[in-house]
Order: sequence, then structure tokens, then C-alpha cells
Amino acid sequence: MGSTFGHVFRITTWGESHGGAVGVVIDGCPPRLELSEAESQREFDRRRPGQSRLTTQRREADQVQILSGVFEGKTLGTPICLLVWNQDAISSPYADFQRIYRPSHADYTYQAKYGIRNWQGGGRASARETVGRVAAGAVAKKLLQTLAGTQVLAYVRQVHTIVAEVDPETVTPEAVEANAVRCPDPEAAAAMFARIDQARRELDSLGGVIECVARGVPPGWGEPVFDKLEADLAKGMLSIPATKGFEVGSGFAGATMTGSQHNDAFYSEGGRIRTRTNYSGGIQGGISNGEMIFLRVAFKPTATIARAQETVDEEGQPVTLAAHGRHDPCVLPRAVPVVEAMAALVLADHLLRQRGQCGG
Amino acid sequence: MGSTFGHVFRITTWGESHGGAVGVVIDGCPPRLELSEAESQREFDRRRPGQSRLTTQRREADQVQILSGVFEGKTLGTPICLLVWNQDAISSPYADFQRIYRPSHADYTYQAKYGIRNWQGGGRASARETVGRVAAGAVAKKLLQTLAGTQVLAYVRQVHTIVAEVDPETVTPEAVEANAVRCPDPEAAAAMFARIDQARRELDSLGGVIECVARGVPPGWGEPVFDKLEADLAKGMLSIPATKGFEVGSGFAGATMTGSQHNDAFYSEGGRIRTRTNYSGGIQGGISNGEMIFLRVAFKPTATIARAQETVDEEGQPVTLAAHGRHDPCVLPRAVPVVEAMAALVLADHLLRQRGQCGG
Amino acid sequence: MGSTFGHVFRITTWGESHGGAVGVVIDGCPPRLELSEAESQREFDRRRPGQSRLTTQRREADQVQILSGVFEGKTLGTPICLLVWNQDAISSPYADFQRIYRPSHADYTYQAKYGIRNWQGGGRASARETVGRVAAGAVAKKLLQTLAGTQVLAYVRQVHTIVAEVDPETVTPEAVEANAVRCPDPEAAAAMFARIDQARRELDSLGGVIECVARGVPPGWGEPVFDKLEADLAKGMLSIPATKGFEVGSGFAGATMTGSQHNDAFYSEGGRIRTRTNYSGGIQGGISNGEMIFLRVAFKPTATIARAQETVDEEGQPVTLAAHGRHDPCVLPRAVPVVEAMAALVLADHLLRQRGQCGG
Amino acid sequence: MGSTFGHVFRITTWGESHGGAVGVVIDGCPPRLELSEAESQREFDRRRPGQSRLTTQRREADQVQILSGVFEGKTLGTPICLLVWNQDAISSPYADFQRIYRPSHADYTYQAKYGIRNWQGGGRASARETVGRVAAGAVAKKLLQTLAGTQVLAYVRQVHTIVAEVDPETVTPEAVEANAVRCPDPEAAAAMFARIDQARRELDSLGGVIECVARGVPPGWGEPVFDKLEADLAKGMLSIPATKGFEVGSGFAGATMTGSQHNDAFYSEGGRIRTRTNYSGGIQGGISNGEMIFLRVAFKPTATIARAQETVDEEGQPVTLAAHGRHDPCVLPRAVPVVEAMAALVLADHLLRQRGQCGG
Repeated sequence: MGSTFGHVFRITTWGESHGGAVGVVIDGCPPRLELSEAESQREFDRRRPGQSRLTTQRREADQVQILSGVFEGKTLGTPICLLVWNQDAISSPYADFQRIYRPSHADYTYQAKYGIRNWQGGGRASARETVGRVAAGAVAKKLLQTLAGTQVLAYVRQVHTIVAEVDPETVTPEAVEANAVRCPDPEAAAAMFARIDQARRELDSLGGVIECVARGVPPGWGEPVFDKLEADLAKGMLSIPATKGFEVGSGFAGATMTGSQHNDAFYSEGGRIRTRTNYSGGIQGGISNGEMIFLRVAFKPTATIARAQETVDEEGQPVTLAAHGRHDPCVLPRAVPVVEAMAALVLADHLLRQRGQCGG
Repeated sequence: MGSTFGHVFRITTWGESHGGAVGVVIDGCPPRLELSEAESQREFDRRRPGQSRLTTQRREADQVQILSGVFEGKTLGTPICLLVWNQDAISSPYADFQRIYRPSHADYTYQAKYGIRNWQGGGRASARETVGRVAAGAVAKKLLQTLAGTQVLAYVRQVHTIVAEVDPETVTPEAVEANAVRCPDPEAAAAMFARIDQARRELDSLGGVIECVARGVPPGWGEPVFDKLEADLAKGMLSIPATKGFEVGSGFAGATMTGSQHNDAFYSEGGRIRTRTNYSGGIQGGISNGEMIFLRVAFKPTATIARAQETVDEEGQPVTLAAHGRHDPCVLPRAVPVVEAMAALVLADHLLRQRGQCGG
Repeated sequence: MGSTFGHVFRITTWGESHGGAVGVVIDGCPPRLELSEAESQREFDRRRPGQSRLTTQRREADQVQILSGVFEGKTLGTPICLLVWNQDAISSPYADFQRIYRPSHADYTYQAKYGIRNWQGGGRASARETVGRVAAGAVAKKLLQTLAGTQVLAYVRQVHTIVAEVDPETVTPEAVEANAVRCPDPEAAAAMFARIDQARRELDSLGGVIECVARGVPPGWGEPVFDKLEADLAKGMLSIPATKGFEVGSGFAGATMTGSQHNDAFYSEGGRIRTRTNYSGGIQGGISNGEMIFLRVAFKPTATIARAQETVDEEGQPVTLAAHGRHDPCVLPRAVPVVEAMAALVLADHLLRQRGQCGG
Repeated sequence: MGSTFGHVFRITTWGESHGGAVGVVIDGCPPRLELSEAESQREFDRRRPGQSRLTTQRREADQVQILSGVFEGKTLGTPICLLVWNQDAISSPYADFQRIYRPSHADYTYQAKYGIRNWQGGGRASARETVGRVAAGAVAKKLLQTLAGTQVLAYVRQVHTIVAEVDPETVTPEAVEANAVRCPDPEAAAAMFARIDQARRELDSLGGVIECVARGVPPGWGEPVFDKLEADLAKGMLSIPATKGFEVGSGFAGATMTGSQHNDAFYSEGGRIRTRTNYSGGIQGGISNGEMIFLRVAFKPTATIARAQETVDEEGQPVTLAAHGRHDPCVLPRAVPVVEAMAALVLADHLLRQRGQCGG
């Protein structure tokens, strides 16, 4: 259970990292939206490994296929199924893990929950699962752009202790894609690149923070109580593998401010109600206020490291997980499109919810 | 829309801060659980104002009523409706705000979304809405205790820049309730109390951080993908008014660690698989691993301050929101039972989901 | 579980027949709809007993209260809670049934499911539960009328073997309310009245059929696959106590027709696509086609009869359920507003779903 | 929207009749259930055309593929995706219909709803959509058999005016599969076969009734109010293309009975509470009572007939839909596995819901 996300614009992902395929069904996408496989493919390509020596060397000649819901280049209003085959289904590297619980992976919890697990790769806990999210996110982004002129953009804000300087109001997709780290601050990006390379050599991994902005969200999206815009965003972000924290607007720093500092004063600008500051992060009472929405997501360092580690097997016997060659020392550049996708999915859902209930 | 939370143990809250009543319907509570109004009343009393001079002086002689679902002291398995009347329905103090958008409140966004709002108090955006959550949370806590021996406990960890030292493994409910700040570190509590009192005198307000622990959660709760335990907890927490951030386990600090530091090594202890550290916060791959779950929630300073503030009215004309006498300079002590309630609601839901799917 | 109905216009009912209150929470109602307690009261009055000697003599001085979601006579867009107190909470007549399973009631199944039941009245299985549906249905009817000019109307079509002649295209609310049987064919109504009176004298009860029409439904409501308009209507109707069957359009009679007879030929009338016949019942492929929607619901004879009956107690021991004085020999006149309510709830939900997804 | 069915055992279907593939995602299936493609294939084969000269001659060399959720022959507890490619994607026969609304098909309503439609075949309204249901239903049937010993069985009860005599207590799968009509009364089956063949020669089509029984359902499945077992069954059945009616237990005939005839007297048999008659159809108050559940579904004659028909095109201009050669004069034999699938899906969902809430 729990493989469905969204209320009106609703996605269901499926697929393990090995065996068969991974994919997503989008239900509730409005009709007559122009859509091609190329759009999902582009986002998909951004999240796949092998883009530079920063990321895992595994090659995936993946191709996104649209199996339903699109006709003559336009959405039909019916479910859109997007699929990518698992071509790299070599399970042998995982055979060693068959009865071993890798530290801070989901091996143990899956076994405890289900009494069975697909030990070939991480099963549903693998980053491979996010393929479906990214493919669906591309559709959500297209929808947001088309119906509301809303743009969603994410980028790496922090790797380990290196924090980039980025102006969220003006940052562009081109600046994000300009380097392999997906950090639009070139200087910080270079330092991050070096730090990640060092981690690789040390057979270790690094965490960091991804920031995401949504520009052009009109006032009125989000629901008052449980389905507050920030609540759904928080859920979406914390559902991404390896995330440990979420902030919107002032975030944890806001906890150390006073009300007179933090309150965003209203003013009027050309007939539009604006706020002079934006500590609220574009959301007040769970509902968008027309200002830029921005949020940050904390990622722990990847659990897969190349060093030997102490752990136990299924019988609880101590074993050493052997050192091995390849690993992805920092998942953040590849996670950028996933964060973007989740933000876009939440916003597209609330766009349609608002239109249904309030006719907006 | 959006007033329902949970999939199997499911609550629906309703009610504005003024007029009529506020309440909650719990659907999906198992039968034969011993339950009385006293349990919800106790939690309810913890969140109401007027408990010390730290909090607003408004008196609410509130009483929780069970209207359905309980018979001869036991749950029937049918929906439990809990209600509290709004006795303090004096709207005059709010008449001044009728056409004014208070900064960082939801006045503007509600108006933008619905084209109408209940200007008597904050409507659904008021903290009054959390009454239903707390009443339902008491039922969830009872259920968790009875079926799984799980205990949920929250406390104030930080007010403004004052950070308490607390051992989440051993902290007790008594220690939390020992002072008006609900901070189990007495020294920090005293400093917080003074800082809050100062804010009151300065007609200002303060934010802070609430920490919450769940002890005695067995392995296996939570779903792999979107309904990860931490994702549902994040949504629950960010649905609480005035929250700006969420962390589980290592949180944002985890972003600055390496994998070799952060990975929680497994070991076996008396036949039970444990982890030596708990940076994961008791959840791996979205599923509980049997270790203590802990999380932190950032609250911004309350938007209601007693100082005069610049803002606009419904026509966008600049107006000054006059200074006024009473306000709650720090909402955190009252928010502690709300955080506890949301954590309990998420865990109770996943307990039943796990039992349904896996028979656990 | 299972006390919530609808996806966007969504209701949750709660309450047993005895103890506390019964009520409903409507979530997802659009804002700025004019609404008063009088509207729900009127529908509520139609379904309560004691309206003529045809129905049970119990008096209920019931009054519908709006507890939330309405401000200055208009909906706020937030949850609307409607409540009616159980004033007639005398359980003594039920004390005899405390350990006895009444035939064709839900006593046994509730006990089997929950291991506990409220033996004072029928608990959630009582017709009393429908109060919330009728109160919410009044809001749905108002919404349909206001946003789409859609009218929903139900009436008794058959009692026992007496079948009325009614033209669903032209029947009026006044004709339905013109007699205590709520059958717009006066001749049939008189015969039904006599048949019901006879059943009362014989301490027995009667079943029958209620027909419901929806006029002014535009093309496009309903979803292609599982949430077909007729599927949601069928679920709504079969969720009403004592129902055993559902038909839409040609219904079971359609099974004996050939395709060349049954196919509804299209033609154009003043720019509007119409069908010459309407065996489809206004729905094709799950989606409204602009023609009148009509359906029929079969009700079994009420399980409560005044005769002595053989049954068993909780230990399985044979016992005689004693004859008693009062009963409602035919529930159909009171069930008419319930059928109307369920039809209105389904249609209101699909109106909003269509508006959300297709912008219609 | 509306492509998802079920609450805990939940399926999402996708796919049009032409282009790409059709399939289903099952979310919430318990782990460690033995499952192979053969099981879904068997059910799938039962619903496909070309099994005898009674049905359409189109050949589909279809093969069901499991893409996820099964590992080494057992379910993982994660989503199971089942897919069948559309190999027969020749759209030319449909090119004539591109701008014509076929009578009693969904062409017009889809166009009205979405402003676009896949004119190659019936899109989502095609019987092809039921492939996913049948594939998922095979999993549900396996689950019911394994966890509860419950058996679901459907058969053709009526074709046009020919009504079979069947004892629902004793009918076997073998008797159903013994002839091409899937009617276990051989005499009636022969008459049905002749009648269908006659309809083919007359270029016409026939409707009928499918009956479905569930044996071995323990007491306690189903929810009291909206998610009554019969309500969910009714929704499931009316979501099948071409259905016009639903009955459970006594059905419409029950409307002409008296309470003293219809009430099912309880008695005790070997410690088990039974009923002497079963007009209730195994469900009381929405909850199974341990007796056999049985229901009937009315199918209209197939809209596709081989005769010329008058209709209109997209501009509303009168056109004649030309006569053509091939058609399926009676869809009922192929619909039998679909009815079985929907019944199994509803029951499997309620099995898990009951286990979650009541621990049963």
C-alpha cells in the first residue's frame, strides 16, 4: 500500500530496481495537454546515473514509453501509463547481500515488515523507484506551465558543509544545468565537485540540501487544515529516499526570530496584494499567497559506501560487509529532478483541487 | 476539502474558532477499546490557553463531549464524534480586523481562495481547530498503548535561541508537565520562561522547536514509497499552524555528515536486531526498525503580536493594525499536545495498516 | 471505517440511534453558497417518523443545527457540520433485545464483526443514521440547483405489488408531497395506503421500489472506469438500509431486449445532441449524456414486524422474539428523501470532479 | 480520474483498446502469496474473444506479464503491475467512426467530457479495459482462497428471455466452463447458444443476467454505512461496461414480499449461527453473516450491432452508420470472469479491512 500520491492529479508508482520494469500511472490529468515521450525522457535523463564521474558508472540505456492516455500527441483525460524497462537486471553484485542487512538500508525493515524481500538491489527502496515520479513530474510541470504559468525549479544548495549562494527569485534552469553538481553558484559548485571527488576516493559518501522554488503560483492553492500546501510538500519531500528534513520559508531559522521580525507586512503593488518580506515562503494558513514558494530538503549521506562495514545477517550473526568498488558518493545532483517532480506533483494536484472546489 | 487525515484510523475535523462548535470524527477505531471523555479532556486541557501567565488569559470552560461510537465505556468500532462548544464567541475584538489583512495570518489567503471568510477569529486557521486533533490524539494514544505498548511524548526543545538538553530515551511525561513551558530541562525551562515573559512585555512573540519521541514502536510500521512513516509524520507536523520545518533522526545536521559516520551499524541483542547509533531516527526505507523514533518541528513566532503593524485592507489601502493588549507570546507549550496528537494519529494509522496488509 | 462518501464533495456521517447525537460533516462544499438550517430541516422533516398513521408514532422534536462552515448565511468553503440530538433516548423498549439477534437485522453481524454492539436501537444500522445523509443531501441539492440548474426528485414507484404510473419527465415535487405515501400517481397512492394499513393490522411489513430522476444534468459528469456515474449511484443507493437492488435506465428489463431495440439513436435538436429513446438512462460509458437520468431502488420489507418470531440469543439458544405493538409497516415514504439525498450527493461530487479535471 | 478501486486491496487500471498496452497495478496485496503469470493468464484467457463462434473472431495472442511485485514466485507486498500489450492495433476499421457517434457507445459522452477521444476503438470504454480487472481479480481470488477459503463463482443465468435453473449452493466451476455460454444448466445453455447464433444472423445483439456467488465468506466482512459489502459490490458491478442493474439476495423480487416472509430466521447449527432462509443474500446491515453471498447483474444488449443505424456526426449532421460484418452478439460469456473479478476484488478488500480494524 502507499504507492499512490495526490488526490485529483494522482500518481501510482510500481516496480522494483531489478526484474521487469518500473513505471507510473497518472490518473486525473486534464485532457488536451500536449505531451510527448520526450518531455518525460528529458527529466528521466537528468536523474539517471552515469552523467559524469561524480555519479555511478552504471549505464542505463533507458527509454521512457507512454503506454496509454495520450493520442496524437495530446492527453485524453484518461490514465497515462509511463514505463521504463529494467535493462540492467544483473543481480550477481547483490547476491552477497542476499542474507545480510546493509547498514541504514531498508533490507532489515522490509524483511521485518513483509517476511520477504527482493534482495536484488533495493527493491522499492531503491532510487530506481523515483523513475516513475520523475516521469510523472514532467507531466505535472507541463500542466502547471500551461494552465497557470507556474515554474518549478530545484538545485543543490549545500553539499556536506559547503553552502552555495543562490538568489531563488532569479535562478534559471540553465544555471542549474550548467554543471554536474546542479548547483547554480559556480564557485560553490566547483568546491562541491572537489569535495565529492574526495569522498569517492575515501570510499565514503556525503549528504546535503536541495532547495526548490515555485514561481508564478497564484493565491489560493492549498487547503486549510491537513492538506495545507506545505504539509503536502513536506510529505512529498520526505517520501524521497534518504531525506531527513524539510523547511519552508524561514524554516528552522524562523524559530529563533521574533514575531515583529518574522511577520510579512502586506502592501499593495499595482492592484496586487504583496508582502514586503517572504519569511512565510509564499504560503499562509496552508494556502499560497502569490509570493514565491521556496523550501529546502535535507539529504543524509548515501547509505551505500565502498568501505567495509560491520553488520549482521538474517540470523543476527555478526558479519562484515566487504568493501567494493563502485558507489555514488553524493546522490544530490541526481535527486534534483526528483525534488522538482514532487513539488510539481503537489502543486498540480492543488491547482486542480482549487479549480474543482472554488472554480478558480 | 482536506479536513480528513489518515487512511485506516481516520479523523475529520470541523469547526471555526467562533460560532457553533469545534470537533472531530474518528472513523476506523477498533472496537472494545476502553474510552472515556476524561481521556480526551485531559489532553484538551493541556492545549487550552489560560494555564499560566505565559499563555493567553482567555478563559475557556471547555468540556469535551463524546456524541457517538462509545457504549458503556467501550468503543463500538463505529465513528466516534467528539465535540467542544465555542463558549467564548465574542466577536467584537475581531470587528476591527473585519476588512484588514493581519500580517502572516491567513486572512488574505482565505479571502483569495474562497472570496469569503469568517473574520471572527481565524476561522479554520485558528489554533482552535487543533482541539479536534488533540481529542482524537488521545484516542490514538490509548490505542497505541493498548495494542502495541507504544508511548508518544513531546516537549519543548527550544524557545528562541535557548536550547534545552534532554535525553529522549528517558524523558518522562512528568518531567514535561513539571513546568509551564513543558520543557523537561528545568534550567532551560526557567530561562525560556523569562525570555517569553520578556517578549510579552515587548509586545512581541517567539518561535521555537518541539521534539517528539515514540518509544516501543515495533519494526514494520510504515509503507515503502509515498506513505513512508516519516512522510506521514512530516505531513502531520506541517499541518499544524505556525510550523515551518520538520526533521527526523539526524535531520539537517545529517546533511553535513559522511556515510561512514551516519550509517547505523546493526548488531544483535538478545535475539533482537538493533542499531548501535540511531541517526535514522528509528525509520529506514520508510518503515520503523524498532528503535526509538524521534523528530523535531520548527515553529515560527506567533503572528499575533501586540504591537502596531503596517498592513492593507481588502481594497489594498495601507492601514495600521492598532496595538492591543493581550496576546500569547509563545505558542509552543500549548502546541506540545498537538504535536503528540499528530504523531499518535500517524502511528495508530500505520499500526492498523500493517495489521491489515501483513496480519501483524 | 466506511463512514465517508464522495471524493471532492465528501460527507462523513456519525452517530448511533440512541445516545448522544447523529450528524454529518460535509467537506469540499464550494464557498458563498447561500445556506440556512431551514433547508436541511425541511429535508430532515420529510424523513422523520410520525408524519401520518402510516409511519411509526414515535415523536422526534428534532432540530438540525449547523455547527460550522456557514457564516452570515453563506458557506465558507470549510467543513459544514450538521447535528441533530437524539432526544428520544429511551432504551427500555430495546432492553429485551439486548442478547437476542432480531431476524434480518444487523444485531448478529455487528456482534460477529466487532464483538460489541449498542443494543439500544439499531446502532449505526438504524434508519436514524440516514439523518446525516438527508441533511447533507439538502446542501448537495442546493449546490446542484445553483451551479448547474440540476433537479433531483424521488418518489415511491411501487409498494408490494402495486405499481404506480408516473411520467419521470414531468413529475413535480408537489405531486410527490401531495400524499403520505409520496407516490405521485394518486390512484396508486390510495391503493398503496390501503395495502400498508392492512399490513399494519396484520403486524407485517411491505417492501417496494423508489424511482429517482435527475433532470438538467449536463453532458460530461462521471468518470470512465470505476467511478462511472451509475456505479457511484449504485453504491450510494445500496448503502441505504434495506435496499436489495438497483437499476438505471432500462435496468433488468433491458436484459431481454435486442441491441437494435435498445440502442438510443442520436439526433440533433437546436444544436444539441439528443437521443430519441433513453434506455441508457442518461448515462453512456459512465458519463452523463445530457438526457434525464433515472434509476430505481428495490427495498425489502422492513425487518421490524410486530409479530412474534423465532430466533436465537447470543449463546445460540432458540428464543421467541415477542410480538409488540408499534412498527413502521412500510419504510418507503420516509426513504424517498434518503434516495434523493444519495443521488444529489453523487451528482454534486461529480459536478466538482468534472470542474476540477476538465474545467467545465 | 476514477481508475482506482478498493481501499486496502487497491487496483488501478490503465490503457485504451488501441495503442500501447492495457494493465493494472495492485497495491496492498499481502506478501508471501504464491503467484504466477499463469493464474492471471487463465482468467485473462476466459475473457478474451475468439473462444467459439459465439464470440468475435478477432484473434488476440495476448500474454499477461508480471512487471513487479513478485519475486521467486511469491508476492513481495509491494505493487504488482500486470500488463498485456495491444497487439491488434489496427485502427483502420475504426477510421469510419472517427467523427461519428455510435449509438449507445461512449463516443459522444467522451467527446463532451474531454473535448478529445481516442476514436480507434472504444478507448477506456472498450471491454478491453477489463483485462486489467480480470488479471487483478485472479490475484484477489487466490488471496481469498488462501487466507479465508472463500470461493467466488459467476455464471450466465439468463440470455435474452431464456432463464437457466442453477443451484447456487452447489454449482461448480467445471459446470460453468462446460460450455461456451458459461451457463451451468446444459439445457438452457443449448437454447442460449441457439438464440445467440440467431441474433448473429440477424446482425443483432442480446443482453442477459450474470449471477455470482461467494461461498465461505466468514461473518464480519463489510462496513456499516457507505462501504456496506453490497454497496461496494453494486459499485463494482455497475462499473462493468454494459451493466444496467444489480440485485443482492431477494433483489427486486424482495420488494413484493412481506416482512414475515422475507425475514431470515436464525438458528444454531453445531455452534454456528445460521439462517433458515437466505433472502438477505448473506449480508445484513452491510456485513457478511456467514451464509452464501449471491447477486445478479443485468447486462444490456451490446451496443455494437452489424446493422446499419441512424446517428449523427460531431457536427450533429445525420449520418448512417454502415452495416459491417463482425460483431459479438452476446458479451455475457466473456463477462463472466469480469463479474467474478469484481466480486473477488471487493471481498479481498474487505477481508483486509476487517483484519486491520478488528484484527480478525
